[in-house]
Amino acid sequence: MSILAVGSVAFDTIATPAGKVENALGGSATYFSLAASYFTDVRMVAVVGEDFTAEHENILNKRKIDTRGIEHAKGKTFRWGGQYMENLNEAKTDFTELNVFEKFHPRIPKEYKDSKILFLGNIHPNLQATVRREVDGVKLTGGDTMNFWIQGSRKELGETLKLVNILLINDDEAKMLAGGEKNLLRAANKVLAMGPQALVIKHGEYGATIFFREGAFGIGSHPFRAPALPIDEVKDPTGAGDSFAGGFMGYISSQEQINREVIKRALFYGGVMGSYAVERFGTERLQSLSREEIDARFQIFRELTHLG
Amino acid sequence: MSILAVGSVAFDTIATPAGKVENALGGSATYFSLAASYFTDVRMVAVVGEDFTAEHENILNKRKIDTRGIEHAKGKTFRWGGQYMENLNEAKTDFTELNVFEKFHPRIPKEYKDSKILFLGNIHPNLQATVRREVDGVKLTGGDTMNFWIQGSRKELGETLKLVNILLINDDEAKMLAGGEKNLLRAANKVLAMGPQALVIKHGEYGATIFFREGAFGIGSHPFRAPALPIDEVKDPTGAGDSFAGGFMGYISSQEQINREVIKRALFYGGVMGSYAVERFGTERLQSLSREEIDARFQIFRELTHLG
Repeated sequence: MSILAVGSVAFDTIATPAGKVENALGGSATYFSLAASYFTDVRMVAVVGEDFTAEHENILNKRKIDTRGIEHAKGKTFRWGGQYMENLNEAKTDFTELNVFEKFHPRIPKEYKDSKILFLGNIHPNLQATVRREVDGVKLTGGDTMNFWIQGSRKELGETLKLVNILLINDDEAKMLAGGEKNLLRAANKVLAMGPQALVIKHGEYGATIFFREGAFGIGSHPFRAPALPIDEVKDPTGAGDSFAGGFMGYISSQEQINREVIKRALFYGGVMGSYAVERFGTERLQSLSREEIDARFQIFRELTHLG
Repeated sequence: MSILAVGSVAFDTIATPAGKVENALGGSATYFSLAASYFTDVRMVAVVGEDFTAEHENILNKRKIDTRGIEHAKGKTFRWGGQYMENLNEAKTDFTELNVFEKFHPRIPKEYKDSKILFLGNIHPNLQATVRREVDGVKLTGGDTMNFWIQGSRKELGETLKLVNILLINDDEAKMLAGGEKNLLRAANKVLAMGPQALVIKHGEYGATIFFREGAFGIGSHPFRAPALPIDEVKDPTGAGDSFAGGFMGYISSQEQINREVIKRALFYGGVMGSYAVERFGTERLQSLSREEIDARFQIFRELTHLG
């Protein structure tokens, strides 16, 4: 099944202890779509400015991503600049220029309306909800959000969460969304009570855990945990979470049905794509992978955690 | 094979968001020995004061722990008081009264000298080294340490690390021991270069990873990662690391030989014992477990992480 992804396209200027890159193609929809493209057909909805050239679009098209839903607006593309210090867990933002993204109102091409799997990248919860409502017949909706919306648009986010089947956020976001609950399991249960059937909490270098609401997908409510790979050099953590979501949702889209085994494997594939993303700057590594490399790392993840 | 454990016995006064306990039997050797006692025979070397009664000793003897190596000295037993705030990751120490522990010089009873497996709990590195040298014919030595020795006795610790086969420490300790290296894999490799064949880094609620020096135990150098169980209520994190070490070393001691599968399972058992320890205050839960309960949770850990 093809997957429809909505989110940002950006040009990122990033400095990390491993180096620096300027105006690299990024944004949540870009990372997500590139990662998902190794598993399924991807349709992208986003907005770009006049500085987004055929060369940029070609990066997506080479991965057979359907870019008809990318709106070309007058002005400049969203730009973000940030630095990561030595621990690489948190970025210090140098600048944010929303540009055309400020007035982004996602428009779904009619060719996309039959999409069965939807991913709502990190944009205003109201826009996420609008997109979800515009695509009838969706069978599964994944979603992301961030501290900014959790703090500033909690009510709107609450409405959107009722439309999301699987929410993917990190530890801090989960605890914040749960009203400051510090215990991970209790935080997860509070978030699940807001609407989603499943919640993926990403732990950065420690992997990710999926929690299920009782009865979700008919597959039991025991959590499942996938590892992250200890990596010698994290060059650039930008986009790791979106790449994780792309691997996770992409693998699910490629399967006939959703069962517990599919979701477990999807969580592993999420970790695999996140681990590849951070090995190079920007989306570089995600542009040039092969399914064989992905499955080889999947196998490494298995060996990293499985008893005989 | 029986295991010889050296470390502290203490009376702990602990406050957490879940409650409070006063003068509960604790200390690194106590947690370690109780956890290991479900897998193998344990011999304890420690020092206590006159306030350590037959009732306390009975807690250990009920688990068939050999307490002949516990020295009874004039004065009071080591006492520690601390509080955990809501995140439960770090204790704020209220008081430390070393008492008889201040002059502790471990004496190994001659009945213990044939011990093949040794665990050096968190005491001064010089004392750890002395114990190791006093027990000839040891086949495997596990060890712990802490920030206090890493910062204050780095040289002595360096000598001790050459005598330790498997070092068990947490993320912060590993990074500090590696001279402030922030990348976990690189920190692990730096610590392994100091002597140990294997390094277990404990990640708290995210589990633990074991790293191997090339050629260690002849079982390959790929790391292995075991999960921790998402727990609804962590009542008291005191002793979680020592309980982890007890499960890990105890399981290894119970096996005929050390191979990769044994070490992987040992890491799982470490996580199981750590997860039980934190469910109640002090050593309460570790006193009353059964091997069936332990293996049931081992199975939950497996289901938490294993693909079909």
